[in-house]
Parts: sequence; structure tokens; C-alpha cells
Amino acid sequence: MSSDITRRRLLGTVGAAGAAGVAAGASGGVLGARATQDGPTALTTIGSTSVSFHGRHQAGITTPLQARGHLVAFDLAPGADRRAAAALLRRWSTAAQRLTAGQPVDDDTGVALDAGPSSLTVTFGFGRTFFDRTGLEKQRPEALEPLPDFTSDTLDPKRSNGDLWLQIGADDGLVAFHALRAVQKAARDTARLRWQMNGFNRTPGATERPRTVRNLMGQVDGTNNPQPTDADFDRRIFVPADGDPAWMAHGSYAVVRRIRMLLDGWESLSLAEQEKVIGRRKSDGAPLSGGTATTPVDLNKTDAAGNALIAADAHVRTAAPETNGGAAMLRRPFSFHDGIDADGVPDAGLLLIAWQADPIKGFVPVQRKLDRGDALSAFIRHEASALFAVPGGAAKGEYVGQRLLEA
Amino acid sequence: MSSDITRRRLLGTVGAAGAAGVAAGASGGVLGARATQDGPTALTTIGSTSVSFHGRHQAGITTPLQARGHLVAFDLAPGADRRAAAALLRRWSTAAQRLTAGQPVDDDTGVALDAGPSSLTVTFGFGRTFFDRTGLEKQRPEALEPLPDFTSDTLDPKRSNGDLWLQIGADDGLVAFHALRAVQKAARDTARLRWQMNGFNRTPGATERPRTVRNLMGQVDGTNNPQPTDADFDRRIFVPADGDPAWMAHGSYAVVRRIRMLLDGWESLSLAEQEKVIGRRKSDGAPLSGGTATTPVDLNKTDAAGNALIAADAHVRTAAPETNGGAAMLRRPFSFHDGIDADGVPDAGLLLIAWQADPIKGFVPVQRKLDRGDALSAFIRHEASALFAVPGGAAKGEYVGQRLLEA
Repeated sequence: MSSDITRRRLLGTVGAAGAAGVAAGASGGVLGARATQDGPTALTTIGSTSVSFHGRHQAGITTPLQARGHLVAFDLAPGADRRAAAALLRRWSTAAQRLTAGQPVDDDTGVALDAGPSSLTVTFGFGRTFFDRTGLEKQRPEALEPLPDFTSDTLDPKRSNGDLWLQIGADDGLVAFHALRAVQKAARDTARLRWQMNGFNRTPGATERPRTVRNLMGQVDGTNNPQPTDADFDRRIFVPADGDPAWMAHGSYAVVRRIRMLLDGWESLSLAEQEKVIGRRKSDGAPLSGGTATTPVDLNKTDAAGNALIAADAHVRTAAPETNGGAAMLRRPFSFHDGIDADGVPDAGLLLIAWQADPIKGFVPVQRKLDRGDALSAFIRHEASALFAVPGGAAKGEYVGQRLLEA
Repeated sequence: MSSDITRRRLLGTVGAAGAAGVAAGASGGVLGARATQDGPTALTTIGSTSVSFHGRHQAGITTPLQARGHLVAFDLAPGADRRAAAALLRRWSTAAQRLTAGQPVDDDTGVALDAGPSSLTVTFGFGRTFFDRTGLEKQRPEALEPLPDFTSDTLDPKRSNGDLWLQIGADDGLVAFHALRAVQKAARDTARLRWQMNGFNRTPGATERPRTVRNLMGQVDGTNNPQPTDADFDRRIFVPADGDPAWMAHGSYAVVRRIRMLLDGWESLSLAEQEKVIGRRKSDGAPLSGGTATTPVDLNKTDAAGNALIAADAHVRTAAPETNGGAAMLRRPFSFHDGIDADGVPDAGLLLIAWQADPIKGFVPVQRKLDRGDALSAFIRHEASALFAVPGGAAKGEYVGQRLLEA
């Protein structure tokens, strides 16, 4: 924790001085500090921060959200067996270990030259279909049973599921792209790209509100996330040490959903209408039942006339753990924006990555409820879906998934 | 300049401390400083830096490259006349002035709430077709004559040209997206979206080499850019005060090219082969004729055997001002990465924005030369092209293009 505190203080110091009048050259000025000096400058913590590849859990689950993200799914090539898959996971782990430490890989593209590790993480998961193709059916977790169909889904199978999944995050766009190309190259003939998505979040230092994410609807997202300081955080998010199957000890399950936002419709609502749909104040995420962003939502509170302050179909009510048997997941999303679609409207929204120890207890009951009665449904569309088993972190010398592939 | 120096010092301080061991929580740790604290933290200079909308030139030309960019072209709606166009440019200028100062616009989407202005710039240009549609043919600059066809072009007309063009840049992805939606909404019924592209560059603080850009081929880009300190910088990049037409005084011309990189082919070359194609060392951009990144290229230098150190078809030779009658442009590119295309290869490359006082003297001779004899041509493909007249900056109370629209 002390390094976190140091970091916060440093950023705070810069912030205060920044507010005191540091400004880039106005138009017509010079190219500015970043562009006119010849010599190298020091990296800030944005560049120099590294996240260890090794650990009890894989990195990229409880790691602070990065400014850039890539999600990429692969299918094993015909003929690639368990042995080939094991070699691939070893290559990938070696690459991830080097890249997250800011080191080049073999045959490096050079795209990350000059940059620090920039909080890069690479997280690996296995999809349901992986187990048949490698003769590992008996090791397939029950939790990988396909998610139920939801009535409001319009899923594109080509951008859903996959044998293998990687989540890449970094605070620099070129560092993230560099890692993406490195894992693509390391796939060689063993695995073929199935789908790939790009996402982003706030740049560190651009916002005063680091705890939460603001999405492209302008809503604060993740206010209700379980916190690592919660007594039941590990139990809800991670498979226990003696979990089943054994190779998933300390792992987690990732539900990935590409959620398109129908922004033209959403933005035509008034602020009050938007807040009623969500059940929270847009400015700071405080629930309409009162308090601040961190105040628990009071679903029973009424106004003087006896009307519920949180509407019956408000998103926050429909999604609340209290109305879903205590179901909880860790939302760790990236926004996406892939330009405009054929209709000229933004192809933008949220790449939701929801983490939980058990998707049947975490994601499914919440999504089932949202599917039926969420006022937000009119403004979003689930376009792709996937579910992956993400094993625990690799110890030094080990690769991710080794306990599965060499069982 | 003093503010730039202050800024550099601040960043330097943070960098030094960062190098001394600040690291994010390893995997399995807590969500980290950005995610676990409840109260607001101060913005760093990344968030707090603002670039003035008003000035002799528009912002976004000599402004340091931002981490995120959006390029967007509009066509006037049928029936929208000069008066409607003037009202639109006034609305856009008002929005840009507010947004770049970190203030909300009317009917704000809220996406930039919590964030500082984050070096946001919005730059406006007029395409050739704008002038017919508004009865302003007599005001159309000769420099807007269509660019010649280049033999290696494979241009998509739907993603080329346009009546109006906006370049949005910011160091935060949500701030940039917020500005994009704001100008789209302000277009109302006057102008319709024609095309839109997303780009990115390094995050400030992620790199030790701020002067130059590294592109997705891993090459240092823009080493040879004219510098604002050059005696002839203004003459080459900006239309003079007594330029023709008069409304373009202090303006510039932007050539926009979507340049796809054929990365699979490029990455199959060895480092030595790549360096020969470019004529520069990949690690630091130093020319193969010797010296450092800032050493002028010596096109005549040979090795002991009499072979030219810079190959006959090297990109740096073909593009050099010395071989193009001194033609110079200010390259201010963003990388782009729009996921994978139908063939499963990355739809990625460079959004080149080339600025010059006269595209016939700046861009055209260089591109003609590159088109014919550049070794790099085998690894890139120009997929879209546009040319815009970008007027000078608006004085306070004025809107961009007022001297054209109210002439």
C-alpha cells in the first residue's frame, strides 16, 4: 500500500502545481514541451508503473483500469492438440512476463520502444470449446456451461465465444498495440484469431474521480462494485484454493459482453429522464434515494407523496444485489468506439468484462432480471457474448494454464 | 515558454520518483490508488492543461500531439445555404471555445464530467465542395484544386473529401469523444456526417522521447518535421497575412490520408531490411548515413565499397526536401487501429494530417515522388484522401470562418 500512497501524493503534487497555471502553448505558439525538446525526458509514473505478471491471481482483474484495452479471442487451428496448446500458453506466458516488465520479445516489432511498461497486463482465459479440442473434457468446469439466451440479445456468433481469450490493458495505446501484435505473432500456426475488440478508459490524471468509470452515456459506472476491502470479496470474485476443478484454484470467470449504446435515443432524453432510467444522479453517481456516490441505494425510500424515489424499472434497482439473491460481480469495463456504422450513428458502447467466482451465481441472475425489466434496455443492445475460465496466476517458472495442460 | 519549462520540471520530478520504485499493486493486490479511494484526487497536468481556442492560428496545428484524435467530415444538408453554414460555424466555435476551456455545452452529454480540458483542441476546415453549395465559388482558394491521382492510391470516396472537416484531439479518450458528440449534435439539420475516423498517439508520460512519434510499424515518424524555431517555418506552414484569398490569412491547408499499414508483410522483414526500406535506424530514428535522430540525412554518403548508405528507393531519400525542391510539410499524424478486417488482419495504420501553406508545393511533389519510387509503398496503402482549407484562428467574439462567410 505504501507505494500506492506515494504515487497518489506525487500525482497530487503535480495536480496542485498544474492547477496553479501550467498550460500548453496557445495556438500559434510553439509545438510545446512534448514536441520541441531534443533530449529524452523522464517517464512519469504512467510510463514507469509495472504490474507483476506472476501472482496468486492473474493480473488484469483487480488491477486499476487502464486507459487502453484489447480483447482478443483465438480458436485452435485444426490439428492443434493439447501439446501444441501447452506450447502456445508457454510462449504467451513468456511474452507476457517480458512485456509487462517493459522488455522486448523475440523478433520484437519495436512499437513499444521508448515507452515504459505503462501498467501493461495480459490476462488469459479458456472458452468452453477449448476442452473438446484438446481432449480435456473432464477438466472442463461446470461453470462454463453456455449462458442462457436472453430475450433482448442480438448476438453476433462471429464476435462471440472462442477457444482462448486474452485481455490486454495498458495506459499507453502503443504499448497495448505492441502486446496485441506480439501475442498474435506468438500464436503462429497453433491458433487463429477469431475476434478482436478495442476499448478505452480515462487517461490517468485526466480525472478527479479515480474510483469509478464514466461511460459513453455519461453515467458513472461501477459505483456498486465489490471492493477488495469487503470481507467476502475473494469468495465472490475468485475460485477458492480447494475449488473444483483443482486447476481453477484462485482463478475467476470472465463474462464478456459487447454492449452497444443507442446514443442518439439516450441523448434525446432530458437529464431528469436519464437519471430516472438509471436511478442515480448523473453528476456524481449518488443514488436518487439520497446521499453520495458511496451511499447504499435505499430501494424502499419514497417521497412525501409515497412514490418510490428509485423507479420500479430503474437500472440500479434491477441490478441491485438485494434483488438478485446477493449476486455480485466485479465490473471492469472498457468503453468502445469503432467509428460510425452503416447508418451513420456511432458504433460505440461498453465492453463489459464481469468477473466472478461463479457466473451462474454472479452474472446470470442479474442479467436475467435486467433482460426482463430494466428501463435501460431500450438504449442498449448486447451484440456479442463470451464466457471464459481464467485460471489463477502463474508462479515463477510456470506458465498460465500449466496446471490444466499438464494435469 | 516558462510554463512549458515548469511543466517539464514537474513531469521530470514525478518520473524520477517513479523510477525509484513506484509500482501498482501486483496481481492479487487491491484495486490500487486509482480505484480504492473515495475522495477526489487532483488532476495532473494531463487533465488540467488547456489550449486556448482563440489565437492567430487555429489550435491543433502546432499544438503537441494528443493521445486521442477524431477526424470527422460533414456535408451540408440539401437546402442548407451560406446563412445556415454561418450559423453552424458560430455554434461550433461557441462549443469549441467552451469545451477547450473545460466547460460544458448546452444540453451536455456529461461524458467529460470530472475530467479537465486535457489539451482538447477542435480545428475546423472547408473542403472544395463547400464553396459551390454556399454560393461562395469566388472565395474558393486555388489551393483546393483536387489532388492529382497517384497510381498506388486505392481511395474509398465515401471516406474521402467532404464539405466541412473537424479535427479533434485530447489527451483523454472520453474528453475527445465528448467533443465529437457535441459537434455532431450542434450540426443539427445543417450538416450530415460523411465520414469519421479515430486515432491515437502515445499517452504523455509513457515515453522518454517526446519530440517524435513512433508509428505502428515501430518507426520514428516526423523526425524531419519543420520546427517552429526554423526561420521559414511560418512561411512554409501558414498562409501569410496578405495571402490569397484574404479570408485564409494565417490559415493552413490540411491533407488528410488514411494510410493502411500491411503489417503482416512488414513484420516479416528483418530489422536490417526494415531499416533499409526507411533509411533510418529503428531504435532511435538516426539516419543510416550516421549521427543521431536530429542529424540531417546525408544522401550522398557511401560505405568503403562506394555503395550509398541510404538506398536509392529508401523512404527517407524519396521524401527528403532536398529531392523535392525544398517541399516541406508539418506531419501531425495519429495512428489508427480499427480492429481486424474481413481477412482477419489488423485494419491499422496512420491517419496522416499534413499541414502546409500550399499543398501544391508541400504535399503533392513529395507524394508524387513516393508514389513512383518509395520502397515503403509495398507495405502501405492509401485508402482515403481529403484536402481542406483551414482558416486562421478566431479572435475573441469571432467564429472560425467568419471572414469567409460574412465577406
